Amino acid sequence: MTRIMCSHPCQIFNLNQFSELFNSGKSTICEDIAIIRDTLLALRLGDLESVAGAGGGVRFVPRVDKRNTEEYISELCKSLSDPDRILPGGYIYMNDILHNPQQIYKIGEILASRFMDVRPDFVITVETKGTPVAIMTAFSLGCPVVVAGRNGNVTEGPLVSINYVTASSRRIQTMSLSKRAVKEGSRALIIDDFMKGGGTARGMAQLLKEFNVDIVGTGVVIATREPQVKLVSSYTSLIMLEQVDESERKIELSPADWIKSI
Amino acid sequence: MTRIMCSHPCQIFNLNQFSELFNSGKSTICEDIAIIRDTLLALRLGDLESVAGAGGGVRFVPRVDKRNTEEYISELCKSLSDPDRILPGGYIYMNDILHNPQQIYKIGEILASRFMDVRPDFVITVETKGTPVAIMTAFSLGCPVVVAGRNGNVTEGPLVSINYVTASSRRIQTMSLSKRAVKEGSRALIIDDFMKGGGTARGMAQLLKEFNVDIVGTGVVIATREPQVKLVSSYTSLIMLEQVDESERKIELSPADWIKSI
Repeated sequence: MTRIMCSHPCQIFNLNQFSELFNSGKSTICEDIAIIRDTLLALRLGDLESVAGAGGGVRFVPRVDKRNTEEYISELCKSLSDPDRILPGGYIYMNDILHNPQQIYKIGEILASRFMDVRPDFVITVETKGTPVAIMTAFSLGCPVVVAGRNGNVTEGPLVSINYVTASSRRIQTMSLSKRAVKEGSRALIIDDFMKGGGTARGMAQLLKEFNVDIVGTGVVIATREPQVKLVSSYTSLIMLEQVDESERKIELSPADWIKSI
Repeated sequence: MTRIMCSHPCQIFNLNQFSELFNSGKSTICEDIAIIRDTLLALRLGDLESVAGAGGGVRFVPRVDKRNTEEYISELCKSLSDPDRILPGGYIYMNDILHNPQQIYKIGEILASRFMDVRPDFVITVETKGTPVAIMTAFSLGCPVVVAGRNGNVTEGPLVSINYVTASSRRIQTMSLSKRAVKEGSRALIIDDFMKGGGTARGMAQLLKEFNVDIVGTGVVIATREPQVKLVSSYTSLIMLEQVDESERKIELSPADWIKSI
């Protein structure tokens, strides 16, 4: 049962399903679920929640442990501050982390824990680098992902497009979303890998407005300290990028404040 | 332990780690691992493998159940054959599936099971639609993902680029890979969402040749029946797309032959 539920975070399993699968009585299943729950809670690996009603049952809710998360994010900061990561233009090479499923599973789990209570119906990101983090965050939240495109794509059907201005380079860009990807009136969580001025996140918010969608949160892996005022009013990042000094070959990063107070 | 191991497929856990975490003797841990293993095997949910030697321990290897997989792929074919999915040009809308973490977790697990024994060091795909499937396949294989770009990207450092010709539209395209993303002499598994002529997969193979990398397999979610001769010599798909008839509004798909004989 642990294997099945942990592989399907936030999905409701009916007790009858388990009863049939394991060929055992419902009371035995209930007792076992209580034991699993106690163990998960004791080790701070998550929780099992009962869901009442017709479609009810039990679901696994991933939670992250404070100490564990702090340690993990500190380690990540250390690994990202390696001067060999500095690329021309002050960019940081981080694809080895953003494309490592185990790393982004962990990152997604932390972001999901942060936004679990606002119950988003879907996660939205814009191609391409933010996609893996968005997928893993949505995996832990048990909801789908919607990927906005940077140029109209033939295989998505009718699109809604907007123009937006990036905060850092002040260039006009286009962002579009398939009409059938989003349901009017649903709740969206914006996820991306990186935030500098917040122009991309604001672009996503503007695009979602066309669909009458509520934005329940914005989460990124890394946000830059400067500019302090972003184009979005509130966001959560795991890591703050204090500065990149290309000539001195120095990268300075620190865990975001809220990480220390989970 | 089940929760920890199932969330980290193919990663080796030392028995001392568990001993410390659960504050119990090594022999108890061993007994518990034997019980978990028996249960996983009995329910065909995976296996626990012992790894000998200095860095040894135990690791969870996901396996998929034949009946379960057959049913799942048949359901997927049914859902994909909905005529409302037909887009102008004979394309099929399938982003709701390719961006649904639970669906691609399952798809990735099936592809990973298929290629588990050839032990790839990494999974390679080309942006953008194949990325989520590649990430989830690599998650189950316990290895990283490398994403080739369609246009040079500033944040990846020095690139190796090739030109290749797509089989279907006969257009010349560029594909590039960051020099630091791939280690010479390692083993690659090519994963993509869709294969028509096989031009993209052959492009990836040509690109990898520049890195002296062995290709141990090619896996896609959907391959078209026509052309029967693809530009790559061997590949595995989960689903065969028999035909799309835009005027008759009909899509015909079937599970690949090997699915029936897992």
